[in-house]
Amino acid sequence: MIYLTQSIHRNAQIYANQTATVCNGRTHTWSQFRDRISRAAGGLQSLGVKEGDRCAILSLNSDYYLEYYYLIPWSGACLVPLNIRWTAKENAYSLTDAGTKVLFVDDTFAPMVAALKAEGVELNHIIYIGEKTCPEDMISYESLIADHEPVEDSYRHNDDLAGIFYTGGTTGFPKGVMLTHTSLWTSAVSLIASMSIGASTKYLHAAPMFHLADNAMTQASVIAGASHYFIPAFTPEGVIKAISIHDITHTLLVPVMIQMVVDTLDKNPADMSSLQRLLYGASPISESVLVRAMAALPNTKFSQGYGQTELSPLATMLGEEYHTTNGPYAGKLKSAGRAIACVEIKIVDENNNRLGVNEIGEVAVKGPNAMVAYWNKPEETAKTLKDGWVHTGDAGYLDEDGFLFLVDRVKDMIVSGGENVYSTEVENALMKHPDIAQAVVIGIPHDKWGEQVHAEIILKEGSVATESEIKIHCQEYIANYKCPRSITFRSKPFPISGAGKLLKREVRKPYWEGTERGIS
Amino acid sequence: MIYLTQSIHRNAQIYANQTATVCNGRTHTWSQFRDRISRAAGGLQSLGVKEGDRCAILSLNSDYYLEYYYLIPWSGACLVPLNIRWTAKENAYSLTDAGTKVLFVDDTFAPMVAALKAEGVELNHIIYIGEKTCPEDMISYESLIADHEPVEDSYRHNDDLAGIFYTGGTTGFPKGVMLTHTSLWTSAVSLIASMSIGASTKYLHAAPMFHLADNAMTQASVIAGASHYFIPAFTPEGVIKAISIHDITHTLLVPVMIQMVVDTLDKNPADMSSLQRLLYGASPISESVLVRAMAALPNTKFSQGYGQTELSPLATMLGEEYHTTNGPYAGKLKSAGRAIACVEIKIVDENNNRLGVNEIGEVAVKGPNAMVAYWNKPEETAKTLKDGWVHTGDAGYLDEDGFLFLVDRVKDMIVSGGENVYSTEVENALMKHPDIAQAVVIGIPHDKWGEQVHAEIILKEGSVATESEIKIHCQEYIANYKCPRSITFRSKPFPISGAGKLLKREVRKPYWEGTERGIS
Repeated sequence: MIYLTQSIHRNAQIYANQTATVCNGRTHTWSQFRDRISRAAGGLQSLGVKEGDRCAILSLNSDYYLEYYYLIPWSGACLVPLNIRWTAKENAYSLTDAGTKVLFVDDTFAPMVAALKAEGVELNHIIYIGEKTCPEDMISYESLIADHEPVEDSYRHNDDLAGIFYTGGTTGFPKGVMLTHTSLWTSAVSLIASMSIGASTKYLHAAPMFHLADNAMTQASVIAGASHYFIPAFTPEGVIKAISIHDITHTLLVPVMIQMVVDTLDKNPADMSSLQRLLYGASPISESVLVRAMAALPNTKFSQGYGQTELSPLATMLGEEYHTTNGPYAGKLKSAGRAIACVEIKIVDENNNRLGVNEIGEVAVKGPNAMVAYWNKPEETAKTLKDGWVHTGDAGYLDEDGFLFLVDRVKDMIVSGGENVYSTEVENALMKHPDIAQAVVIGIPHDKWGEQVHAEIILKEGSVATESEIKIHCQEYIANYKCPRSITFRSKPFPISGAGKLLKREVRKPYWEGTERGIS
Repeated sequence: MIYLTQSIHRNAQIYANQTATVCNGRTHTWSQFRDRISRAAGGLQSLGVKEGDRCAILSLNSDYYLEYYYLIPWSGACLVPLNIRWTAKENAYSLTDAGTKVLFVDDTFAPMVAALKAEGVELNHIIYIGEKTCPEDMISYESLIADHEPVEDSYRHNDDLAGIFYTGGTTGFPKGVMLTHTSLWTSAVSLIASMSIGASTKYLHAAPMFHLADNAMTQASVIAGASHYFIPAFTPEGVIKAISIHDITHTLLVPVMIQMVVDTLDKNPADMSSLQRLLYGASPISESVLVRAMAALPNTKFSQGYGQTELSPLATMLGEEYHTTNGPYAGKLKSAGRAIACVEIKIVDENNNRLGVNEIGEVAVKGPNAMVAYWNKPEETAKTLKDGWVHTGDAGYLDEDGFLFLVDRVKDMIVSGGENVYSTEVENALMKHPDIAQAVVIGIPHDKWGEQVHAEIILKEGSVATESEIKIHCQEYIANYKCPRSITFRSKPFPISGAGKLLKREVRKPYWEGTERGIS
């Protein structure tokens, strides 16, 4: 049987006295790690948490977050890691949708609890994983550990639900992606070999730990017995400092973060020689950033991962050998790479027929890492999961060497600073404004973030809503990163196809003409 | 879902024109490989082979053998790879036990078919995978491929039975170990990272391909997209020639084979510089052999694997860094290594209680690579598989670093030249001789093979059977490597415990006193 906690048993046996976590002056060995999570699991059970119950977390990165990822399955419960960039409304929806009764919060998010409750969230227990004094209405995580004896592992495994991971929804509501022990494990194990992760690896959690991208590296690093280091949230200075102090060997960033690290190193050089491997995702790296990054990080090999939450999350990887602009491996830098070890990839047309080499269609992926379903959303599940294949909503083609090139997002998604923004979700928020008649949201080019969320709006007759009013309105409903950064008020109707469908491509066109991505 | 054929789909997509197999002057790419196996699978289906049907193979190593390992699951059928060292009686038992209707044979084993039929084996079809003219009563494998269109993959997966692998039985009969797609895949995937297997790997099949040891490397190398090379059967000259001609990078041998390769290289030096990795199993490597091997193979990193068919087959690995006699990693060379990435290991006493560090007991292993059951043997299954743990029958202890040291075989197994011989099986064969009253079989020290099969016999009163008569008698029932190499006739009764149990340890004692293994 495949079970996420297996690596904790193994590490406590074969790396008992090796470092598991280093955070805020605390260091725990794998033996201590097992002891702590088996006690915390006992604590949860004493609070009435039963097999399959959902326990959420809303926290910046820390060693406690890593413990959460293992104490929850150990106790028999299910993971629900919440998006730290979402509003209280969005996370409240997710908590209620999953029927969550327990929430772990750190100092940053303890104040959000009141807002969640105001949105109707009913929580039985709130576990405090902060660094200060535990608020009165919460349970101290360290007391939970201190006050309980270690319990036996629940040994949930294989197709048992490991967690529900919320992702932006095309319908305007977050969708809970149901992932099993097998799906998370197989995605992670495919990473170990291609990223050369081993027991001497020092992994830095720099990207947010709720996100499946960091989670894949988390699981892979734990399986391999690596040591874990944390910064609460990404800053270029924080990454640089952690790497140079702790001799970090591996980390995961998105291209925009890499660029910020390189910019900072330009001004304040630091010793980055320990960094062997850097995995990036969410978008291809541009040649200019790569050339600068390779100069700034001379010992580092770059790999790209592409995927989505529905794939736990990996679909493809672009290996380090293809991060070059000359020689026999050149020419693939704009590719998302090739199928990871455990998956098959195909490109299909709108009738789900398999397309040939270099033909553009929707990317579909089949493998043990595929999600089971969207939680409580059978219709959305049926649209995405067909005959074992996850239909990603991304458009692309496979070249003759099996390299995947993404050309567009079928589901009309904007990727800004490594975050996915579904335009429908932003449009829904806009349409709640009483003055707006029609709203179309698109991504437009942005030097730093890749794409910027842009809205084109037709106001109701006689309305006088301003750009700043509308922006503030949006912040009530959706995370800040999803809110339009720019708004154009238009009087001309939106372009419509013969079949009456909005031609979003036509709306996008003027912004992208003459740019590299304008071709697609 | 996890399925063995997934790597064939992937390799045909991302390594389409790269070499899959090189054998007897034939070279096939991964694209051709997929084409061939999907046609052969169609051929099998046209012969009436249905989902779950068992299809056996009795053959030396070749590219056809590798194709067999994938065309069978592609067709929906189950693998039954037969032991090439067993007698017709033993393999006939296995074929009948598994209810096998189709057999693949090469030139070496085509002549054994008559003997199998004489033992009552009923076969519907015999597929000829030899290099000569296809015998009249067999079906040519190449015609099967040429005459049929490619069929769709059956996509058998996860807990579906992938194959039945026969292993020597303690009761005197072979036991069919049922392994699933998940069990074979998880064992293999754990090897990829620790053996640095990749698409540029050139793997030499030197150990017999029916055996799970080579099978683990087979699956791992196919998942990684490596190229496969073959010698029909192990000879030191064959291994050396293949490595130097094809620039082989990886292979698997047992220590006794390593010693023979090194002996041969002493006499006839050859360029072995391409060989990066050598995995050995079945027994620890002695310090003297390792020192010689490291001198003869200066570019080669050594790793040890320990396991058994019931674990698909891996339980532990001793990494390359521990193949040293000095420095911080020294002192583990006699260990079988530590738990592979996907398993947990414990040591238990006779009441199945977990023992502590350095305490000797039976080795038990839990993981997704564990067998489902012994085919049609519920009692034997219940003895071996308890609560998800495979009880290996091997005695050993775990040191404070989680390294496993094997000290004895609980199930009384002799390991001779890397092959396991169950003494009960040999004793059963002996007892079929009309002149033998009592027989006890033990392993005694042997310089080259590690252990030698030795029998102590009490003849019936007035009997006059000779040593050579008894040896010939045994060859009728069991494989040559299992037959006693030496026999002592005794008149004194065998030592018996207070409870009336034969004290085999006492019988072994005089042979092992003063030797290294005599301590246990």
